[in-house]
Amino acid sequence: MNSFGRIFRISIFGESHGHCVGITIDGCPCGIPLKEEDFIKDMDRRRSGIQGTTKRLEPDSVEIWNGVYDGYTTGSPITAIVCNTNTNPKDYSLFKHVPRPGHADFTGQKKYHSFNDMRGGGHFSGRVALGLVIAGVIAKKILKEIHFISTILSVGGSQNISQKIEETLQEKDSVGGLVECRIQGCPIGWGEPFFDSIESSISHLVFAIPAIRGIEFGEGFLSASRKGSEHNDAFIDQNGKTLTNHCGGINGGITNGNEILFRVAVKPPSSIAKSQHTFDFQKNAMTDLVVEGRHDACIALRIPVIIEAAAAIALADFSLLRGHS
Amino acid sequence: MNSFGRIFRISIFGESHGHCVGITIDGCPCGIPLKEEDFIKDMDRRRSGIQGTTKRLEPDSVEIWNGVYDGYTTGSPITAIVCNTNTNPKDYSLFKHVPRPGHADFTGQKKYHSFNDMRGGGHFSGRVALGLVIAGVIAKKILKEIHFISTILSVGGSQNISQKIEETLQEKDSVGGLVECRIQGCPIGWGEPFFDSIESSISHLVFAIPAIRGIEFGEGFLSASRKGSEHNDAFIDQNGKTLTNHCGGINGGITNGNEILFRVAVKPPSSIAKSQHTFDFQKNAMTDLVVEGRHDACIALRIPVIIEAAAAIALADFSLLRGHS
Amino acid sequence: MNSFGRIFRISIFGESHGHCVGITIDGCPCGIPLKEEDFIKDMDRRRSGIQGTTKRLEPDSVEIWNGVYDGYTTGSPITAIVCNTNTNPKDYSLFKHVPRPGHADFTGQKKYHSFNDMRGGGHFSGRVALGLVIAGVIAKKILKEIHFISTILSVGGSQNISQKIEETLQEKDSVGGLVECRIQGCPIGWGEPFFDSIESSISHLVFAIPAIRGIEFGEGFLSASRKGSEHNDAFIDQNGKTLTNHCGGINGGITNGNEILFRVAVKPPSSIAKSQHTFDFQKNAMTDLVVEGRHDACIALRIPVIIEAAAAIALADFSLLRGHS
Amino acid sequence: MNSFGRIFRISIFGESHGHCVGITIDGCPCGIPLKEEDFIKDMDRRRSGIQGTTKRLEPDSVEIWNGVYDGYTTGSPITAIVCNTNTNPKDYSLFKHVPRPGHADFTGQKKYHSFNDMRGGGHFSGRVALGLVIAGVIAKKILKEIHFISTILSVGGSQNISQKIEETLQEKDSVGGLVECRIQGCPIGWGEPFFDSIESSISHLVFAIPAIRGIEFGEGFLSASRKGSEHNDAFIDQNGKTLTNHCGGINGGITNGNEILFRVAVKPPSSIAKSQHTFDFQKNAMTDLVVEGRHDACIALRIPVIIEAAAAIALADFSLLRGHS
Repeated sequence: MNSFGRIFRISIFGESHGHCVGITIDGCPCGIPLKEEDFIKDMDRRRSGIQGTTKRLEPDSVEIWNGVYDGYTTGSPITAIVCNTNTNPKDYSLFKHVPRPGHADFTGQKKYHSFNDMRGGGHFSGRVALGLVIAGVIAKKILKEIHFISTILSVGGSQNISQKIEETLQEKDSVGGLVECRIQGCPIGWGEPFFDSIESSISHLVFAIPAIRGIEFGEGFLSASRKGSEHNDAFIDQNGKTLTNHCGGINGGITNGNEILFRVAVKPPSSIAKSQHTFDFQKNAMTDLVVEGRHDACIALRIPVIIEAAAAIALADFSLLRGHS
Repeated sequence: MNSFGRIFRISIFGESHGHCVGITIDGCPCGIPLKEEDFIKDMDRRRSGIQGTTKRLEPDSVEIWNGVYDGYTTGSPITAIVCNTNTNPKDYSLFKHVPRPGHADFTGQKKYHSFNDMRGGGHFSGRVALGLVIAGVIAKKILKEIHFISTILSVGGSQNISQKIEETLQEKDSVGGLVECRIQGCPIGWGEPFFDSIESSISHLVFAIPAIRGIEFGEGFLSASRKGSEHNDAFIDQNGKTLTNHCGGINGGITNGNEILFRVAVKPPSSIAKSQHTFDFQKNAMTDLVVEGRHDACIALRIPVIIEAAAAIALADFSLLRGHS
Repeated sequence: MNSFGRIFRISIFGESHGHCVGITIDGCPCGIPLKEEDFIKDMDRRRSGIQGTTKRLEPDSVEIWNGVYDGYTTGSPITAIVCNTNTNPKDYSLFKHVPRPGHADFTGQKKYHSFNDMRGGGHFSGRVALGLVIAGVIAKKILKEIHFISTILSVGGSQNISQKIEETLQEKDSVGGLVECRIQGCPIGWGEPFFDSIESSISHLVFAIPAIRGIEFGEGFLSASRKGSEHNDAFIDQNGKTLTNHCGGINGGITNGNEILFRVAVKPPSSIAKSQHTFDFQKNAMTDLVVEGRHDACIALRIPVIIEAAAAIALADFSLLRGHS
Repeated sequence: MNSFGRIFRISIFGESHGHCVGITIDGCPCGIPLKEEDFIKDMDRRRSGIQGTTKRLEPDSVEIWNGVYDGYTTGSPITAIVCNTNTNPKDYSLFKHVPRPGHADFTGQKKYHSFNDMRGGGHFSGRVALGLVIAGVIAKKILKEIHFISTILSVGGSQNISQKIEETLQEKDSVGGLVECRIQGCPIGWGEPFFDSIESSISHLVFAIPAIRGIEFGEGFLSASRKGSEHNDAFIDQNGKTLTNHCGGINGGITNGNEILFRVAVKPPSSIAKSQHTFDFQKNAMTDLVVEGRHDACIALRIPVIIEAAAAIALADFSLLRGHS
């Protein structure tokens, strides 16, 4: 299922080498100023080009096709797309027989009986997440009092990011990374006590992003080792401000007015130029696979703007539900 | 929103000190043998009674009210409940003015303008998760070829669980824990590439459970420090078996036929008898709070059967969608 | 699927001869005064007892099980039930082999492979609509400025209702009826232009009610014979008041502030004591069927309060979405 | 909300004078042969050009953007669009002040605070229903054993359609019509007993189509005047064949294997060249309005293929749910 949300509803479509990737957003309020230039900053943050990211360079210009008139959202569905311009006529048929370890080549073929478009990963491509970035820009406009800050904490366990990337490139390998998102200014009382807790909604969206392997809120996995007297956040004023923020701004699934904080683990990209010993399903024998081409050595570098978008989309939906619990 | 699922749909209701907690399950196939005794084993696993869990002892017998006739599911909605028998007439009004640090007392009151039922945590009570256990039992019947194994890996960072619990009780404190779930026998091809990835669905349900602070699949947070050549799982046979299972049985959001593996971090319970310095919203001043009563010192001890249920519910939904991607 | 709604979400359960019929309502705002007596008036309107309705008499007392505390809704899911007290140990096995013409006996068995509970119609029973009446009472409380008026226009084509019922009873037959619902005080701007038009939502719920065969809004089927110059409703003041109301208060799927008006066609009940020549699936031959027992001669008599409830539920959902298009 | 469906999910977007109208279809199985030419026949049936329909002539070529590779559906979301080529730079600002009687000009402005795109009706345009036609073509491919036949029964109450249209054009007026849809070959057991009855699903989609005022199944409104002994359909063989088909192929919300039959009432188009006395909201006074331009005199002429599409979409969703109740 390629849609998400209750009021602010998004439906994603597209594949890496098809005509475009895009998104339809339903339930966006009318009267929000929106123009194509508004997307440039966040699209640039996701684009490749820096060391460690793929050499597939595309302008990634967002085209707004529907739902905006005279510079403002109309209240009708917004469809926006990014055309795929720099597609590569390379032959992906090798991966039908020798599916890349760690990649969706194998599961995609099994699920879709080989009808899936494997070029560039098809609908499994990280490029599909562009739709999230688009929706995130609009979501942030709805949440204009709320600030999102995401940063890369480390790659490959190292805080010296550029050095680690350099090493990885020399080894023709790839590397994972740890990314943090902090959200300031969210009102008290968003989220629901059970299935639609803030954590449920954000994690649902975050795990839609290819390559995410874990998520934790506040103290996260550290809290498993803690005592209640250490982990509990004492209140210190009438506004609900707390002395510490071990819970990451959420109690019982509901925002408590403090900073929302979560971290995600991003796995290393599966396509590497280093040789891998794996199975050839056609020859029914082990083989050595070297994945040539334009790949990211560290996809985590491009993740901050996407998880920020995921969080904004989740919160925009809650903001429009506000007062209706 | 208190419902979840697309085909196998569950709607949860109830509060700690109301008449009952329960669940309605829609979309369960007809013809599944089901009787009230079938719930005993998993309900017992969730019950308190062992050292470190609350002394609120209840039989927690499941009553099937609808959707079962002559020992088999009818295809109509199944409603099953557990009555609240051992409620405590204790006064919860203190927590209106001195909300427990780390608890939903504060956010619940803000969200529901003090109309929420605060007795025993009301709808925020861990007791509401009984509905998940009920649905989990039925989900496992749908998934009869699939085996679920969940275990407590550690509490308070210690693998010597009973000793750590003993210490914690003596300190009048509480402690967190780490729980793992392994799922064997799941076919290849369940899950969707984007919003309804296996990870999205499981994490959505898992974060509905009170006290969960993090989730990771396969190598999880460790993968953020790894290289692709280390993390990738090489294929070794025609069935898609892999040499390692760092991805936790999921590629591109879709099951690959290997064991599904995830871990969750459970925070320490917020209600502790140890004194806490926190805010009194009525007196507008700091105060010392001692939470008396029957509390769990380590809720993680009761979590394994619940996360197993969450995973089973998510997978039952995918199993009924099978072939429809 | 046994649930409906986006914000004000209802999940229905139960069968005629099971423990109870009931409903869970999620998304009801907190702070609404609600007690069990509030349901009496509408439940009495649906009850049988008058000439032409079944002799199955039950008190039909609503029990509120969850979501209400101290006389007010808490914001948590509301579960309310009506116990089945006057069930009849009669043997329904005849209808397995000789399914009643016009009834769901045949389709129910086919769909559920004979696992369905056929006693009293099981989940197909009109009694399941009690859940709608319960939700309707709560919906009307949310819509306190809006008035609902439903009336029986005719039964069996006759406006002399009691005479027609008398004739029908003497013939051991049953009869259909025409019911109208008028809704006053609905604000301008509710409803959506496409899939969630007011008409879509109301008709979706209305056709959930057993025995409904048609619905029309405003001039309805008559409009198919009309000219635009006759059918169009001219505006006559700044508030959008119109000279006529041929559109039934809805333009482009959205309320225009005038009275909402719709009519439904209710078919005659299928269970009749008059002999019917039909098929015996066991004997593989035609047979004569006389349906004994307690049946409604005219279910339309009990429909007004149910379609009113259906309309109120649909509008309550729109009211909670208000301002979010 | 602009989406519909549980497995076969459609999200519609676009407006009359924007870049395009289109649809995203999620949940379509992989491996279905699909090319752009497949849409020509049904698009032509919806196109204008014959007497009584608008002179806005456009090729209405469907472009498939995503979800199809090498001639087959991939299992990923399908996005298909129709560009708006013959847009008219006419000034629609008159209708801001003098909203057309019977049109959504008034409600659209109220709902969207005048941010809606009024050109050509914007998102309220009948042109948005092109998306349904597109989805209908794909749905029919899923339902390859099922045949759909829709016909115009009458326009303006007359079965002599061309004569009635001629008269209407001379009077500069418009006229309504009655359209019937018959569906053959649908298996037994599709549909659900309550909220997702076949009638609920079809009517929900049908009332999304602009200009529909009523729907009836089988004998429909006539059944309100009938006796049970007349309306009941006696079974006559082991397959569930019935002697008559007054129920329109549906019992208890579930298909019974007989022909599904429904009729819809289509109102006369609201835009007419004949003068109408209505309100000028700017001048705060009554005025005479003559709607110039290219309008349909009878939109019912273009409805058959659309209601057929609506029915096919509803049934495709049920077909993919088959066996899961």
